[in-house]
Amino acid sequence: MDCFGILERVREKRPLVHHMTNWVSISSCADVTRALGALPVMAHATEEAEDMAGISSALVLNIGTLTSGLVYTMELAAKAANRKGIPVVLDAVGAGATKMRTDACLRLLKSCRIDILKGNAAEIAGIAGVEAEVKGVESISVSGDLKVIAKDLAGKLGSIVVITGKDDIVSDGKRTAIVSNGHELMGRVVGTGCMASSCIASFCAVEKDYLVGAAAALSIFGRAGELAAKKTNEPVAYRNKLIDSIASMKEEDFEQKVEIC
Amino acid sequence: MDCFGILERVREKRPLVHHMTNWVSISSCADVTRALGALPVMAHATEEAEDMAGISSALVLNIGTLTSGLVYTMELAAKAANRKGIPVVLDAVGAGATKMRTDACLRLLKSCRIDILKGNAAEIAGIAGVEAEVKGVESISVSGDLKVIAKDLAGKLGSIVVITGKDDIVSDGKRTAIVSNGHELMGRVVGTGCMASSCIASFCAVEKDYLVGAAAALSIFGRAGELAAKKTNEPVAYRNKLIDSIASMKEEDFEQKVEIC
Amino acid sequence: MDCFGILERVREKRPLVHHMTNWVSISSCADVTRALGALPVMAHATEEAEDMAGISSALVLNIGTLTSGLVYTMELAAKAANRKGIPVVLDAVGAGATKMRTDACLRLLKSCRIDILKGNAAEIAGIAGVEAEVKGVESISVSGDLKVIAKDLAGKLGSIVVITGKDDIVSDGKRTAIVSNGHELMGRVVGTGCMASSCIASFCAVEKDYLVGAAAALSIFGRAGELAAKKTNEPVAYRNKLIDSIASMKEEDFEQKVEIC
Repeated sequence: MDCFGILERVREKRPLVHHMTNWVSISSCADVTRALGALPVMAHATEEAEDMAGISSALVLNIGTLTSGLVYTMELAAKAANRKGIPVVLDAVGAGATKMRTDACLRLLKSCRIDILKGNAAEIAGIAGVEAEVKGVESISVSGDLKVIAKDLAGKLGSIVVITGKDDIVSDGKRTAIVSNGHELMGRVVGTGCMASSCIASFCAVEKDYLVGAAAALSIFGRAGELAAKKTNEPVAYRNKLIDSIASMKEEDFEQKVEIC
Repeated sequence: MDCFGILERVREKRPLVHHMTNWVSISSCADVTRALGALPVMAHATEEAEDMAGISSALVLNIGTLTSGLVYTMELAAKAANRKGIPVVLDAVGAGATKMRTDACLRLLKSCRIDILKGNAAEIAGIAGVEAEVKGVESISVSGDLKVIAKDLAGKLGSIVVITGKDDIVSDGKRTAIVSNGHELMGRVVGTGCMASSCIASFCAVEKDYLVGAAAALSIFGRAGELAAKKTNEPVAYRNKLIDSIASMKEEDFEQKVEIC
Repeated sequence: MDCFGILERVREKRPLVHHMTNWVSISSCADVTRALGALPVMAHATEEAEDMAGISSALVLNIGTLTSGLVYTMELAAKAANRKGIPVVLDAVGAGATKMRTDACLRLLKSCRIDILKGNAAEIAGIAGVEAEVKGVESISVSGDLKVIAKDLAGKLGSIVVITGKDDIVSDGKRTAIVSNGHELMGRVVGTGCMASSCIASFCAVEKDYLVGAAAALSIFGRAGELAAKKTNEPVAYRNKLIDSIASMKEEDFEQKVEIC
């Protein structure tokens, strides 16, 4: 697995990544996509959702500030993406916290093909029906082995399942990758989860093996988090440096910490 | 009054603070809430407004980019917050500038219990029916003594009234606190008013005497503004440093400038 | 042409600039407007669009994250601005990329007076009906001479047409200004195009010759980009420094690179 090689492909091909994302981290998601070398486009109007997905190379659906109308539009965009055969990433922000969010994820998983489902432990547990404690959009505790939960849910859905956390878990139901790049400061700043989804989508736009693409994206993103932590530990400065570390990352800066089992 | 002690309680209890806020400063509001040690969640869908308020420890309503539908949803969330007994902060951004904004505030004040009403001088004057000159969301001049306006309006509403400015005024109709922490650069960067509301909500989530909670929040936030001004006077750099100064503030960095009369 | 003199007028008069803009760069647009010394207000509710335009000195319409309802509200605001005689800037983000966006621009151009139409080469080509390659909101290539396209479209519409790029082109159909201030890093960070529109609106609020106002705004903004590039080449740090360079720009920092032909 050559994570840095996939980053180089993103930089070269500059895939267009269509986001339907939340209003809190929308700017950071655009920034991180651009820092990878890909091109972000944010569009959520029902009238252009299919057109925009149709000219893109990946689609990110993020329910962080969803409305019921937006879920419907996400379905349209995802179906267009499915027809075109481009990867669809669903970031299940706050699933488990309110019924509306859990229901929105279940509805999207049922009506479209979600290629990569991503969340923190509580969010994925909420979708898998496993007991979990959640506080807003933060995961507090989950009962059970996260690797097993990811693997079982991936098998059941026929999708890649990503659980982010101290170590990130990526499973397709058979193979499971553990990505241990990253830094604890990433969990202390707003928007890193959403930014991770932008990375996954950008990578899967150029890497057809989505398990490899998702794991590579998280490894590069996590490495940027490690590099940024060498510069600052202040939260806003850290997020800025995290994004900038992606833009400037050279092969010699990278250290891959991925295991596939 | 021990402002820093309340910050320590926020850091320890990590209250979930539900925001229904504007799209300009939504990211800064999330950042500042996180920097305090609290957990921000932004949610504005009608379908989940009550659920989200029901699991939160404070609610911020900010009409900076309101729509008529959003005002309705804010009512639902505020009523759920009222039932739960958690503090509701209304940031009256632009009240007095357009009829819609003044009306939205009056409607919310009538239909729900607003525990803390916050605005700049012109916004509060707009609600109190006092003559004021306003330019968009900036206060230009107000006729009358702000302390009297705050006290009278607080008495009439049965709420805490906060008027931000060079000195911040916090009144419950009987007691009035004057917070003179702060720096003039805070008035030159976008979003500090909105961020102040996030601070007030986070503090009142852990301090039942809302006059004390609001004054303490403004004292800590103002002190962060003083500390940031020692590092930079460039506006974007200053806002970033302001937020980061909250995250790193130690007891020995703090200087309380609060008088209660 | 005295670009810096117009900036000084902005700083002195502090015009209120009403934005109906996209959710990605809304915060940067507010920041850049404030950094110029003007006052930003963001408002998109149908109920207050006319009121807000009526108290403002310029209006920016940016279709970066449009919905069909928003286009209708933009029309109301633009008509109110037309009645008041304040400049209306339309930033045609993504025109040519989807039918909805091209149609929205054509509809606004037909139903209201757009004083300044601004886009990158592909966006303006999309509106002019010239062949172009577009990737999301990025311009890839356009067939034809951009100066001729700008001049012809300006003549046809009776508006100022601005094409941003390596050199910025501003034409009123007779005169054409070429602004060569700027730095290639500006094209690598998110939101600079949107921020340019905020600058144009702020300048045209105080300069009735809109060709001069728009060209001066782009010269000052481009100069800030040159100054920022001396400090950093990292994208997020660069955008922050770009905005801060506007706030701190002194006459001796400025170098005007504008030709009118």
